[in-house]
This record gives sequence, C-alpha cells and structure tokens, in this order.
Amino acid sequence: MKQNFNLENLRVVLVAPRNPLNIGAAARAMSNFGAGHLRLVQPYKKAFREAVSAVGASSILAQAGEHSGIPEAVADCSLVVGTTAIGNRELRHPLYLLDQAARKIRNRLSKERVAILFGSEKWGLSNESLSHCHWLLHIPVRKEHQSMNLGQAVAVCLYELARGSVPQVRNPDVEAATMETVDRITAALLQALESSGYVKPCSGSAAEEKLRRMIRRFHLQSADAEVFLGMLHKILWKLSSGKKK
Amino acid sequence: MKQNFNLENLRVVLVAPRNPLNIGAAARAMSNFGAGHLRLVQPYKKAFREAVSAVGASSILAQAGEHSGIPEAVADCSLVVGTTAIGNRELRHPLYLLDQAARKIRNRLSKERVAILFGSEKWGLSNESLSHCHWLLHIPVRKEHQSMNLGQAVAVCLYELARGSVPQVRNPDVEAATMETVDRITAALLQALESSGYVKPCSGSAAEEKLRRMIRRFHLQSADAEVFLGMLHKILWKLSSGKKK
Repeated sequence: MKQNFNLENLRVVLVAPRNPLNIGAAARAMSNFGAGHLRLVQPYKKAFREAVSAVGASSILAQAGEHSGIPEAVADCSLVVGTTAIGNRELRHPLYLLDQAARKIRNRLSKERVAILFGSEKWGLSNESLSHCHWLLHIPVRKEHQSMNLGQAVAVCLYELARGSVPQVRNPDVEAATMETVDRITAALLQALESSGYVKPCSGSAAEEKLRRMIRRFHLQSADAEVFLGMLHKILWKLSSGKKK
Repeated sequence: MKQNFNLENLRVVLVAPRNPLNIGAAARAMSNFGAGHLRLVQPYKKAFREAVSAVGASSILAQAGEHSGIPEAVADCSLVVGTTAIGNRELRHPLYLLDQAARKIRNRLSKERVAILFGSEKWGLSNESLSHCHWLLHIPVRKEHQSMNLGQAVAVCLYELARGSVPQVRNPDVEAATMETVDRITAALLQALESSGYVKPCSGSAAEEKLRRMIRRFHLQSADAEVFLGMLHKILWKLSSGKKK
C-alpha cells in the first residue's frame, strides 16, 4: 500500500462559499486525505458560523482562516491554482486536467506552499479571482454537465493530489516569489504606469487585472522579485520627484 | 488521445441511504462523470422522495431503480464490487485500492455490467451486504479519518473510473519573445535605472550583465514583451521629461 503524501504545504481556499454543508464537506474531505489548512475568503457569515458549530465539525474548520480577499489568503503561497468547471474556455490562463495539474502541484508542495482556489457554488471563480491565479485546473467531466458540487470537487482534487508519491524528476531548487511580493510588484508597476501616463489613473480594475496576469506569467523567482521591486520603487521615487519640480 | 471510455455498463448501487442530499449528490456526480444508472436498495422512503423531488434533481434520479434487496439490484451484473472505508480489516474478501480496482472494473465494463455498492452513511456495508460482493474497493485515506461522505466517495470512485476517457486539454502554443526584444527591454530598463539613480551611469558592464540575466529568467512571452517594452518606454519618457523641468 502506498504512503500518504504529505499535504502540509497545501492551502485549500474557498472563495465566497454560501452553503454550510459544502464548507463542512470540504473540511471532511481534507481530513480524509490529510490536508489540514483551510482558508475562506468572504464566506457568507451565517454559513461559516453554521459549519463551524455543526455536530462533528472538524478541528480543520475550527482552525480555518477567514480572509477579506484572495491576496491575504494566498500571501504566503508561491503558486496559486484556480479550479474551473469550464473545460473549453477562451483561455487567458494555461489550463491543465486534474492528473497533470496534480503532478505539477505535488512537485511544488515538496518545498513551497501552494493554494488551490475553489469558487462559490453558484458562480465559480470570477475573472477578478482568476487574475490572482498562475494557472487553472479542470476536473475532466462531461461537457453536458460540467458544474460539480463544491464538496465533491474538493474531494476529487485532494484524492488526486494524495495519489502516490512525488515524481522522480528533480529540477534544481529555485524558490519562487511569494504572492505578497508579487502583489507589491504589481502595485508598484501600476503606480509607475499611472504616473507615466501609460495607464489612466482610476481607469478601473481591467488594467490592474491585465497587469496582475502578466506579472504572474513572469514566474518570478524570489530573489529576482526583491530586486525588481527595488528597481520599481526607485523608478517610482524618481517619477514622483520629477513631478514636484 | 485516449479512447472514449463509457460507463454505460456501470450500475451505482446505494444500499440503505438515509440522507436525500447524499442521494442527490451521488446522482449529480454520476451525471458529471457520465454514469447513468443508479439503483437504490431499501432507501429510506422519505429520503428517496425528497431527493427525487428536489430542485434540479437529475433525470438519473427520476429513472433510478428501487429494489428490495441487493440480489435484485445486481441480478443483471457479472461483477459486484463493495466499497469499504476500512483499509485494514480482517479480510474475507480481496481488497484493492481504488486505482487498481478501477483498472479491473474498466476491463470488465468493456463487455459486461458491473455494480459498485456503497453502504449507508452510518454503517457502511454490512457483512450480509458484503457477502454479495466479489471483492472490495478502498479509497486510500488517512487511517485517522477513514469514513468518507457518501456523495464524495461516489464522486471520487467515478472520477477514477472515468480517468482517461476525456480528451487532454491542448493549451495554445505560447510564442517566446525574441532576443532582439529582450535586449531592447534590457536596454530600456537599464536606462530607467540609470536615470532614476538605481544604477550609476557608466558603472560598467557588471550591472548590465546582471540585468540581462534577470530579464532572461522572466521567460517573457512575445506579446507580454512588447507590452512591457512599451511600458518602459513610457516610463523613460516621463523620467526624461521630469529632468528637463
């Protein structure tokens, strides 16, 4: 019998879940498969309260983090994967079927924290939510019925993640930048672009989302990200000091 | 691309299910993964009625067969597999982990009908129920928490059975930026860094080489590189116009 793969570095993130039964079911599957860290982004208060106080609610639920936004929920992770019900979408992100996605995630989990985002029961993940993701994961289902129950989707993903052991291929250890740094880079670059007139100030979230996706495609390494952020801050300082003259 | 696998010959059998939500969840997972035939053995009448009349109940539920005993429910099948939460029991049956079990079941499904039995939420399958099975299937979970939610167990089993039946997703080929563009980005960024004082002008080739290596690690895509270069040019323009004032 195979060993249980360690999901200690995994963060399961439920975005705006509405149904306490689904929140409880997600936590139960996590306990079954050995993933201990649950985070909720803007859960419906009542649903969260009911889930936590339900009979047999797990310690996973009691310790679940509640966050006001995705950036806070994934700040300490270096890979953010979104789940989508839609297999054939107009892609703005790379999309992988669960088995391939799980191999990629397991590789990263051996040394870094990885977040998997699940959207709300009704809407899935919004474009804004997806813009925080590096790539997307799709559970292969029938085209005629793609929308899965939230608790079942979590269970299937964790089953696949817990499958077997880490693949043999060893790439050199490179530490990826955390989302906190990546978000600071995005913010600094956006400010520079506004300051320089490339982007109109207050032009809404579209420009920011585009930028966010682009920066994620850079797959910044940790050290590079710090250097890049320093550069941007210096440029920003110069841009603002130029203005004052 | 793999063959289209078909779960037409599969019979999902719920034995004495108690919770209408679980019955509905099982049917939903069946619809997701393309298994059309549900059979219930002595379901709690009220639970079954509620499940069938629930909003959004599937045609799978409407057509589900109701049987008084396991022999009637599996009469037309030639292989009967029981699911068990207990990985290390005193075995009176051969026991296989889900992935191995799924391979065996798929082989049979290509020419015969196969039934998979799921026990009630509370008790699982009784010894009497197990005595109708050829062998048992176990979803590998943590020893500390072996009992899975019924709907989630059905979803995970069907996911594994349907594995390989869905065509692989093809991500669009991404064109990498040419070195000419990459070098222009390096030059523009260097100029911005000199202009902002991050790098001293005429500081020699070391700074430029460092920058060149960093930009290459970004693995820029062609479209992103053009956008990024445009951003830098705009920032440069702003930096130099600030100077003149």
